[in-house]
Amino acid sequence: MKVMVLGGDGFCGWPTSLHLSNRGHDIVIVDNLSRRNIDNELEAYSLTPIEPMGVRINTWEQLSGKRIRFHRIDIAGEYDKLKTLILEEKPDAIVHFAEQRAAPYSMKSEYHKCYTVNNNLNATHNVLCAIVATGLPVHLVHLGTMGVYGYGSPDTKIPEGYLNVRIRKEDAGEVEKEILYPADPGSIYHMTKTQDQLFFYYYNKNDGVRITDLHQGIVWGTNIEETLQDERLINRFDYDGDYGTVLNRFLMQSSINHPLTVHGSGGQTRAFIHIQDTVRCIEIALDNPPERNERVKIFNQMTETHRVRDLAQLVSEMTGTEVLYMNNPRKENEENDLNVDNKCFLDLGLNPTTLAQGLLMEVRDVAEKYAHRCDREKIICKSYWTREKGLETQN
Amino acid sequence: MKVMVLGGDGFCGWPTSLHLSNRGHDIVIVDNLSRRNIDNELEAYSLTPIEPMGVRINTWEQLSGKRIRFHRIDIAGEYDKLKTLILEEKPDAIVHFAEQRAAPYSMKSEYHKCYTVNNNLNATHNVLCAIVATGLPVHLVHLGTMGVYGYGSPDTKIPEGYLNVRIRKEDAGEVEKEILYPADPGSIYHMTKTQDQLFFYYYNKNDGVRITDLHQGIVWGTNIEETLQDERLINRFDYDGDYGTVLNRFLMQSSINHPLTVHGSGGQTRAFIHIQDTVRCIEIALDNPPERNERVKIFNQMTETHRVRDLAQLVSEMTGTEVLYMNNPRKENEENDLNVDNKCFLDLGLNPTTLAQGLLMEVRDVAEKYAHRCDREKIICKSYWTREKGLETQN
Repeated sequence: MKVMVLGGDGFCGWPTSLHLSNRGHDIVIVDNLSRRNIDNELEAYSLTPIEPMGVRINTWEQLSGKRIRFHRIDIAGEYDKLKTLILEEKPDAIVHFAEQRAAPYSMKSEYHKCYTVNNNLNATHNVLCAIVATGLPVHLVHLGTMGVYGYGSPDTKIPEGYLNVRIRKEDAGEVEKEILYPADPGSIYHMTKTQDQLFFYYYNKNDGVRITDLHQGIVWGTNIEETLQDERLINRFDYDGDYGTVLNRFLMQSSINHPLTVHGSGGQTRAFIHIQDTVRCIEIALDNPPERNERVKIFNQMTETHRVRDLAQLVSEMTGTEVLYMNNPRKENEENDLNVDNKCFLDLGLNPTTLAQGLLMEVRDVAEKYAHRCDREKIICKSYWTREKGLETQN
Repeated sequence: MKVMVLGGDGFCGWPTSLHLSNRGHDIVIVDNLSRRNIDNELEAYSLTPIEPMGVRINTWEQLSGKRIRFHRIDIAGEYDKLKTLILEEKPDAIVHFAEQRAAPYSMKSEYHKCYTVNNNLNATHNVLCAIVATGLPVHLVHLGTMGVYGYGSPDTKIPEGYLNVRIRKEDAGEVEKEILYPADPGSIYHMTKTQDQLFFYYYNKNDGVRITDLHQGIVWGTNIEETLQDERLINRFDYDGDYGTVLNRFLMQSSINHPLTVHGSGGQTRAFIHIQDTVRCIEIALDNPPERNERVKIFNQMTETHRVRDLAQLVSEMTGTEVLYMNNPRKENEENDLNVDNKCFLDLGLNPTTLAQGLLMEVRDVAEKYAHRCDREKIICKSYWTREKGLETQN
């Protein structure tokens, strides 16, 4: 099938594009290179040496004989270009990764809050509006986040998007209803993803757009089968306080003998998934689109849950690096359980990569190999969730 | 108290500003005059002859001795100007009307969908972000819509914002939880208001912003006590297919012997409120702010519910005008009941203006008086909710 990958230059978008291309799909990447530009703004660069898009695409063509096309379009600000491209390419599916995806970045300042809101909401809306305007039966696959749910309650399982509830009737008795799981975002970034859900709900209801929304956990790992074929295809690896996800940060810290920095007690339980499973989930979602007139399909895209301090302990034992507990810059519960349903992807054939399998390779082949490229100044998170949190840390 | 009224030139904003000024509050209006500019775009103007802001303000000062200040700022696009003004004025409260507020306008075209999303979401977010950045304890009062609820189910009452539900636990038994009423928007415009609710939820939770969200029904009537004091203070009256609300449209149609145009069967039940009660509700909300650390306060701002065809019948009997049933351009249920809780405002002293009291005066003093200014070409709604609805009507 022909697949347009919005945000195809990013951490999830690039390996997804290669994986789908390798499976025989025709890939068109759309990206405004915002992630590379934010590298420049933050003066923090991928630990791995990523190549420009032109080199990436040419390398892949040399290796695979397959040509991925690339269009530099800002989908949040250039609606007409996006719509024209959809009309010209007539994709069967669009995979939408094109949002600012770091919670700490979204909390850095007023500018970063407003940028994240403006960019993410207009991007998602423009895609939906353009799909309807072209009249094409495009299947939209969107990368959401487990963060839309908040952290649930210990004795109820977080379902895949929809929750059955019972509501008391006015006279007597109860009525049962299936609702979108009540949103509970923990940052400006997460808030935009809860608002995306309402875009999807509405455009599905009013215009019948076929949509799959994937609520992804925290991604770890760097490479997939395809990006390992040539160093010029390597995926980005972020370790800085804004874009580095927790496990990748631990791996990098261990490789330069920097203490593993845990925020607060580290009792936060989070959901995780390996990047190889991410690209496989996208493929499964594309192969299983909703029917016409089916409601929005929601999958939880995660394979394991762990407490942050347990992960730190695991990496510490594996590498001998000490753990350092720091003030938590976030406003969140210090301890939570997390009980998540991820039956949909398992039923459709996902065979997860476990931490036990992948962690050591990640340490050796990525973190240690490129440790000389690390800028130690960028490791600590300097984004605070509230004014008070910022002051706390200065004192 | 000092109150900043965002959107203070509009249909609700202008009478609110005068009402609060008359009650002794210090009023600062912020508006980008977008509603007047949309008049120019649609070539459809207020039936009543509204004056420019300069004339309005000078007239009010001559009559009352009170000076309302006015700043022309686009709050969705000029964040820095908005923040600077809040820092300079240090308002006790901000009343936020500054959103595109017509469902049909939001459905006219791709441009109108994108404009409504971009304008409304950035406007609300900028206000919240600026309040937090200034560190001032501002109480934000926002005009929401009854449309965030959808139309409920006949046997459960629509509560004021929050719904008690019971969720099955994993092992056995149930847990009770209070959630934000599940959103069910019926247009792009309504969708933005459901997304506003998530802005409020998040900024209240993370930053402790004190917020009151008013879910208003369909407003009818034109003038309030203050706008009646001088014709130069008159409020706008929209009768066109995009901005005219249903009852005002019937009144105007009757005054020029145009048939009363009902969409579909007219079996849609809607909530209504008179503009005099709107301004009184805003005053009550300002007088009863949430406590520090209280969750978002939500009131239903409506006083009566009616079926659209019953309203048409009422106006028809009063004036002898015939009723014309037309194809419904909207995608909605043709028949629904509506059962709404509005206890909060009644308990706080609201004494509603009923249709029975106000309707005849509205016909005589507004619709008939200014009937010569009506452009009959603008009466029919030409915005369709889906491509199919547009085609239906052309055939």
